[in-house]
Amino acid sequence: MKYRTEKDTMGEVLVPAERYWGAQTERSRNNFKIGPSASMPKEIIEGFAYLKKAAAYTNCELGDLAIGKRDAIAAVCDEILAGKLADEFPLVIWQTGSGTQSNMNVNEVIANRAQVLNGFEIGIGEQFIKANDDVNKSQSSNDTFPTAMHIAAYKCVAELTIPAIEKLRDTLHGKAIEFKSVVKIGRTHLMDATPLTLGQEISGYAAQLNYGLKALKNTLAHLSEIALGGTAVGTGLNTPVGYDKKVAEYIANFTGQPFATAPNKFEALAAHDAIVEAHGSLKQLAVSLNKIANDIRMLASGPRSGIGEIRIPENEPGSSIMPGKVNPTQCEALTMVCAQVMGNDVAITVGGMQGQYELNVFKPLMAANFLQSARLLGDACLSFEEHCASGIEPNYKRIEELVNNSLMLVTALNTKIGYYKSAEIAQTAHKNGTTLREEAIRLGYVTAEDFDAWVKPEDMVGNLE
Amino acid sequence: MKYRTEKDTMGEVLVPAERYWGAQTERSRNNFKIGPSASMPKEIIEGFAYLKKAAAYTNCELGDLAIGKRDAIAAVCDEILAGKLADEFPLVIWQTGSGTQSNMNVNEVIANRAQVLNGFEIGIGEQFIKANDDVNKSQSSNDTFPTAMHIAAYKCVAELTIPAIEKLRDTLHGKAIEFKSVVKIGRTHLMDATPLTLGQEISGYAAQLNYGLKALKNTLAHLSEIALGGTAVGTGLNTPVGYDKKVAEYIANFTGQPFATAPNKFEALAAHDAIVEAHGSLKQLAVSLNKIANDIRMLASGPRSGIGEIRIPENEPGSSIMPGKVNPTQCEALTMVCAQVMGNDVAITVGGMQGQYELNVFKPLMAANFLQSARLLGDACLSFEEHCASGIEPNYKRIEELVNNSLMLVTALNTKIGYYKSAEIAQTAHKNGTTLREEAIRLGYVTAEDFDAWVKPEDMVGNLE
Amino acid sequence: MKYRTEKDTMGEVLVPAERYWGAQTERSRNNFKIGPSASMPKEIIEGFAYLKKAAAYTNCELGDLAIGKRDAIAAVCDEILAGKLADEFPLVIWQTGSGTQSNMNVNEVIANRAQVLNGFEIGIGEQFIKANDDVNKSQSSNDTFPTAMHIAAYKCVAELTIPAIEKLRDTLHGKAIEFKSVVKIGRTHLMDATPLTLGQEISGYAAQLNYGLKALKNTLAHLSEIALGGTAVGTGLNTPVGYDKKVAEYIANFTGQPFATAPNKFEALAAHDAIVEAHGSLKQLAVSLNKIANDIRMLASGPRSGIGEIRIPENEPGSSIMPGKVNPTQCEALTMVCAQVMGNDVAITVGGMQGQYELNVFKPLMAANFLQSARLLGDACLSFEEHCASGIEPNYKRIEELVNNSLMLVTALNTKIGYYKSAEIAQTAHKNGTTLREEAIRLGYVTAEDFDAWVKPEDMVGNLE
Amino acid sequence: MKYRTEKDTMGEVLVPAERYWGAQTERSRNNFKIGPSASMPKEIIEGFAYLKKAAAYTNCELGDLAIGKRDAIAAVCDEILAGKLADEFPLVIWQTGSGTQSNMNVNEVIANRAQVLNGFEIGIGEQFIKANDDVNKSQSSNDTFPTAMHIAAYKCVAELTIPAIEKLRDTLHGKAIEFKSVVKIGRTHLMDATPLTLGQEISGYAAQLNYGLKALKNTLAHLSEIALGGTAVGTGLNTPVGYDKKVAEYIANFTGQPFATAPNKFEALAAHDAIVEAHGSLKQLAVSLNKIANDIRMLASGPRSGIGEIRIPENEPGSSIMPGKVNPTQCEALTMVCAQVMGNDVAITVGGMQGQYELNVFKPLMAANFLQSARLLGDACLSFEEHCASGIEPNYKRIEELVNNSLMLVTALNTKIGYYKSAEIAQTAHKNGTTLREEAIRLGYVTAEDFDAWVKPEDMVGNLE
Repeated sequence: MKYRTEKDTMGEVLVPAERYWGAQTERSRNNFKIGPSASMPKEIIEGFAYLKKAAAYTNCELGDLAIGKRDAIAAVCDEILAGKLADEFPLVIWQTGSGTQSNMNVNEVIANRAQVLNGFEIGIGEQFIKANDDVNKSQSSNDTFPTAMHIAAYKCVAELTIPAIEKLRDTLHGKAIEFKSVVKIGRTHLMDATPLTLGQEISGYAAQLNYGLKALKNTLAHLSEIALGGTAVGTGLNTPVGYDKKVAEYIANFTGQPFATAPNKFEALAAHDAIVEAHGSLKQLAVSLNKIANDIRMLASGPRSGIGEIRIPENEPGSSIMPGKVNPTQCEALTMVCAQVMGNDVAITVGGMQGQYELNVFKPLMAANFLQSARLLGDACLSFEEHCASGIEPNYKRIEELVNNSLMLVTALNTKIGYYKSAEIAQTAHKNGTTLREEAIRLGYVTAEDFDAWVKPEDMVGNLE
Repeated sequence: MKYRTEKDTMGEVLVPAERYWGAQTERSRNNFKIGPSASMPKEIIEGFAYLKKAAAYTNCELGDLAIGKRDAIAAVCDEILAGKLADEFPLVIWQTGSGTQSNMNVNEVIANRAQVLNGFEIGIGEQFIKANDDVNKSQSSNDTFPTAMHIAAYKCVAELTIPAIEKLRDTLHGKAIEFKSVVKIGRTHLMDATPLTLGQEISGYAAQLNYGLKALKNTLAHLSEIALGGTAVGTGLNTPVGYDKKVAEYIANFTGQPFATAPNKFEALAAHDAIVEAHGSLKQLAVSLNKIANDIRMLASGPRSGIGEIRIPENEPGSSIMPGKVNPTQCEALTMVCAQVMGNDVAITVGGMQGQYELNVFKPLMAANFLQSARLLGDACLSFEEHCASGIEPNYKRIEELVNNSLMLVTALNTKIGYYKSAEIAQTAHKNGTTLREEAIRLGYVTAEDFDAWVKPEDMVGNLE
Repeated sequence: MKYRTEKDTMGEVLVPAERYWGAQTERSRNNFKIGPSASMPKEIIEGFAYLKKAAAYTNCELGDLAIGKRDAIAAVCDEILAGKLADEFPLVIWQTGSGTQSNMNVNEVIANRAQVLNGFEIGIGEQFIKANDDVNKSQSSNDTFPTAMHIAAYKCVAELTIPAIEKLRDTLHGKAIEFKSVVKIGRTHLMDATPLTLGQEISGYAAQLNYGLKALKNTLAHLSEIALGGTAVGTGLNTPVGYDKKVAEYIANFTGQPFATAPNKFEALAAHDAIVEAHGSLKQLAVSLNKIANDIRMLASGPRSGIGEIRIPENEPGSSIMPGKVNPTQCEALTMVCAQVMGNDVAITVGGMQGQYELNVFKPLMAANFLQSARLLGDACLSFEEHCASGIEPNYKRIEELVNNSLMLVTALNTKIGYYKSAEIAQTAHKNGTTLREEAIRLGYVTAEDFDAWVKPEDMVGNLE
Repeated sequence: MKYRTEKDTMGEVLVPAERYWGAQTERSRNNFKIGPSASMPKEIIEGFAYLKKAAAYTNCELGDLAIGKRDAIAAVCDEILAGKLADEFPLVIWQTGSGTQSNMNVNEVIANRAQVLNGFEIGIGEQFIKANDDVNKSQSSNDTFPTAMHIAAYKCVAELTIPAIEKLRDTLHGKAIEFKSVVKIGRTHLMDATPLTLGQEISGYAAQLNYGLKALKNTLAHLSEIALGGTAVGTGLNTPVGYDKKVAEYIANFTGQPFATAPNKFEALAAHDAIVEAHGSLKQLAVSLNKIANDIRMLASGPRSGIGEIRIPENEPGSSIMPGKVNPTQCEALTMVCAQVMGNDVAITVGGMQGQYELNVFKPLMAANFLQSARLLGDACLSFEEHCASGIEPNYKRIEELVNNSLMLVTALNTKIGYYKSAEIAQTAHKNGTTLREEAIRLGYVTAEDFDAWVKPEDMVGNLE
């Protein structure tokens, strides 16, 4: 491989000749060989592209940067956003906790690529755009990285996670309406209980997702606030007057999302509670989805020795040894994602709690875990919706058989003959393997006519609207 | 000890004669000897007292319960709320996951106590009030326990946790204003950075708490929804028409908090995402408070070999062996509480995710962890506010000495002579143990006059309003 | 209430006259009103009693303490261990993170109680035994509290948790042998799979507990090492030569457990990785027990609409509204305990990771969580063994019906006719609601004779020894 | 792109023509678009390669597979292990929870690649090696995936994680010896305490790692047990006699690690407690490393406004805005890794606890999290050792200045003049900003000669051997 010599404030470094990155990126590559390379999420790089462009526009508008430089910087940012420079960001999550090296990676790539786009060779002659003095003007890693985090997190949640969950919610809501009159046995403690309808059961799932969506949306306000303009410690040192509000406007404009400058920059650098807050809602959704997916696979279990009240799509052979086996694989993928999100929540908690003085140095960790959760939840909900939830069908025969056979229909007698006699009927039928009706009459507590009038599953499920 | 014989649907049980509880409570006492006795939180028992009274009023209003019974039930509920029957609730958290046995404990105590208040002896003659048929009328454990959870959780958060955090927030906000002009060194990565004021630093703490309070308040809406009226599986079986809305109104009235009936009772029994959601915010506050308390103890460290920029109250001797030692004990108590809340969040997550079909059977676990967190955070914030935060004072001498000595003041030169020359000045001063001013002039990059004009800590801290 | 005046190095404090505790305990009571009073686990107080007695004997043997003082201190320690002074330890977990105040609480109570036992009045005349100079001689909170933690933790694990889990393991092992030939359907992905025996299924549970016990026992070596002798920072300042080894011998002798002095006292004060390590094993056991309890409730589900392959004891009425309902309540209590242990593991992790310099100041938090987990797991296993596991019985009729009906018996044909034809048979029978035998013959892949010879559930379960 | 038609038991599927994978892999690709493609860890694929080769050898030796087929299968496995087929494994973690689809991916690639290596075209004519009947012979996903997990986990821990931690431990141990006589101030509660040596302080870190290594090695026994031979539910259906022991011997032989067959296959399929157990130790190490890295960055903090007692290597410029700033970046990368491992521990706990009946279907999740933790901890320890720990140097001037100035040296007077008078000296010196010596003499408690004889930091640090 060919190398060229780059330098930074610490001296010279050999850098692969065909790469746009410079000395500081290369130092980081060499000093942090931890896990797979290039693990810093691409959404973070894109967040940087948005904010570097916005900073260039703002600096220009406020008289601190020439238009030519602004446009050169913006051109490279657009290339990054178009995915054209994907190989230029080799750094890992496990670098400095401020993400300084990824900020410099972006600064260096923009500066060198701009040099080339303007017809010069990298490292030859005066640098047209300087990584620190131009690209990073009015910025610090300490305010750019959290800004990139918020841009990436907000966009992922708003553009992927929320729509995906809404789609699943809509499908479940549709199923709830479709099956609103399918009376089935209820189960509490895994044991037979009083009846409800399949639609009612599924309506609970849709309700869970609605609450989760509401909770998640509640967190967007905090996530929409960006640190840019705080520079090194939150004071805004070396930024022109009005810079923070203006740069947030440009970011809002470029991304199409309602970003605004954070009112307190000290908090925005030293803590990432917005990430903690929003991920708390993702974790809540994981809790909900785990319940939903687990219920669905239990209801679909069988085909002959399980519950079997519903059928879900058969998407692939389920066993390499048992022929003909089909499994609730979408439920499994989704619940594994839920477990991951629960784990990520602890990683984010542990990172979030350890800010010290003016800076939290667990930024890349927090960003990576957040983005993984938001992405996985979104993808998994879409997959689950398409390949499982949308195909849920009742097994009417099985449902009817089970509900009619249930001892818990006796609850309908509580208000007629009291809890104690009702219990005796159920216990006797259970012991004798008989029906409630038989024992109710035999014990002399209810006449056949009354029993038939009082114990009707379809009358026990409440108002179906 | 003397015993009397009580019975339930399974048969006879010997119960301590002087106790109001009955057969089912006694069975639970004997079957669940797990951890200290009577661990079920008293806030849950109080929640039950509110809801039993409300149910009695509602059943009466809707024609299902005689006024005499209503008043008898209400009278015992009032006794419970006044703390007069504290020894009558011996059950533990680690019982059935629906809390059925605690529901029955309350039912039995109310029924037997009412019997006595009405001049009868327990177990003698016809039971005036029946535990299942009267006290538990129009109810099931499955809707009462979650209702008691929400009442207890909402009240604790609204009446203790939030006011306590607000008090601490106010104190920190006051300190932020008081010290808004005290210029000090900033620290990022634990390393010297550009200056800010002590007030700015503390304003970040207040901002964190503000965000946390907002997040916590956002969760109250979900927590204000109560399951009562869903009975066994959410269908409302065996409740009179209009019961659910009416009973919620009574509860709102009796508690003084805005409780309302949950629109989807299936969700309200099978999932406790409202608890997951609200505790997520408590966990966020724990993350914030850990950062704040840790910062304060680092800033106060010393007295001679630490940072020593602030002084905090000396409340007690700090060491059994080192005479004269004083420690940041309030910070330690608070950060231990934060760790507990983070652990409780996982316990609640694990409980919340495992609902099955129509019921989540981790209710007592979830309730106990939630209430512990809400109580501990509230108490710890009050303690921290009173014994630590309110007494924070700057160590002006130390602060001034450190800021004036800092190499990072060089950042002020970036916009004058560029990042590279500035770095050289700082590195040379660091190597030589000299001042920035000396090296800036010696290197010929800045004149003495310019240096003095450009490098002023007080000009580097931005707008102080 | 009457008060007496006590003093410490900070000045005078009013203390309730009838109490043995002194100034520092009273300061802590007033300064840390966080959560219920007296929450510091009594096992920790007992651990202190053992170590104070051992220190007195060691100091005496090494010539630093008079025999009369030794015996006076030891006499009070014995009273504490006999539970006679239970009301004298009012402090909470949420105090200083070194537990200094509980160390002083013990020192003060011992000193004042000794004063009384020797015929003097508290606070009158010369103090016969001094809290700091005598009771705390050759000690610091920094080495006593971790020592009390290890004594308490080791004893609880060795004397409660391990025997309880072993008892459950033995019962499950017995059931595995008892039911070793009961052939039943297997289930993977919750779906019907090839058969196994009920004994084999249960043998997996016993194996899980065996691994967990082995893992837990592996952690005892670290837990048996005690910090005493390290004093303030681990150097052993102010201890006589040979003190650390000797005092550990006394503790081993008094407790009957193999305690030994920690080889590196710096680690023993600044980190509590032994607690982290041992609790990691408790968490592993929680993971195992959650699986076991969950399986058992699923296998016992029904009675008519669930799996119903086993029966478990009916211990109490299961529902306040559904008469005759019986629930797997012991499974629920146990799985709630498991969730708590999982949460506690995170609390301990968060505490354990935050040691700073020479001290970890999350000691009371770590101790309290550890002891709760060890106690709850022990109690819950005993409860679960007695009231559930020991009563597991097969529902032979149901088991036979399900296994004979299973489509996954087709797997026996894999090695005869290949995976693809076997799959076709199973899929056809599933579609048509027929038996494997019918379709195998109809498709012409197997003769009736071969089918009967090849497809025998009892031949598919491997070696039963 | 060109496609060929492949089929499985569910019918035909179009597969990219140039790929070796078949119908089931392609179905999974299409059905599980969750997160980045090909996320299934390559260590798992390699684990499969080892076990497929071992199974072929065992089946051949036991008479169930022709030598030609054995060698064909083994040849492809060797190619996989050599990294030659890296693009053939496109599946994600978030698939079926048994990993069936990755097992089939390996089966299909081996079968088709063997076809090509033997001179045939894929999909043309009779398949020489069949994916299910030959490559998967005597296997099920249910026993192969856990076997691949254990192979991958064991190898990663034994070959990367443990050696890396041992290297760091050795370096710290070396520093402990090197600096064993450098007397410095101790700090407890972040406050000045009695002195110790820098070597003693660092020896505590080395001790932590030693305990962690011992704990980790304790878990290897469980991890060395493999499920292969259990097939679908643990019974070993469709395996020849002696298969399980023999195949484990081949795996041990091929990998060079001491794998052995699991004594209870039911446990080995239905639970992954070995992963839970081993990861518990990784988490313990994360707890230790977090403490160590955090201490080191605090000790190195400054350069002028921090603690500054040690110097660590300056590896890269630390700030994009503050010239000359150097940060403890290796500490930050390492502590971020620790936070990730703590989060992963919860993900693994949540996955591990949810096994149902004969199978745990969180296998890929558990494997992925385990391997990430083991890899990151190993890499980060190597990086931290090389770029930070090995370069730790004392700042002798600063160390001496701080220790001599300390008020806590007064502790040496405890045994001479008692705790109370010592406290008075320290408090007076603190109040007056004077030295202990001045106040000790002025208060008349100690003569100058005695003070100089008694208060020597170097005499307060105990035995240095």
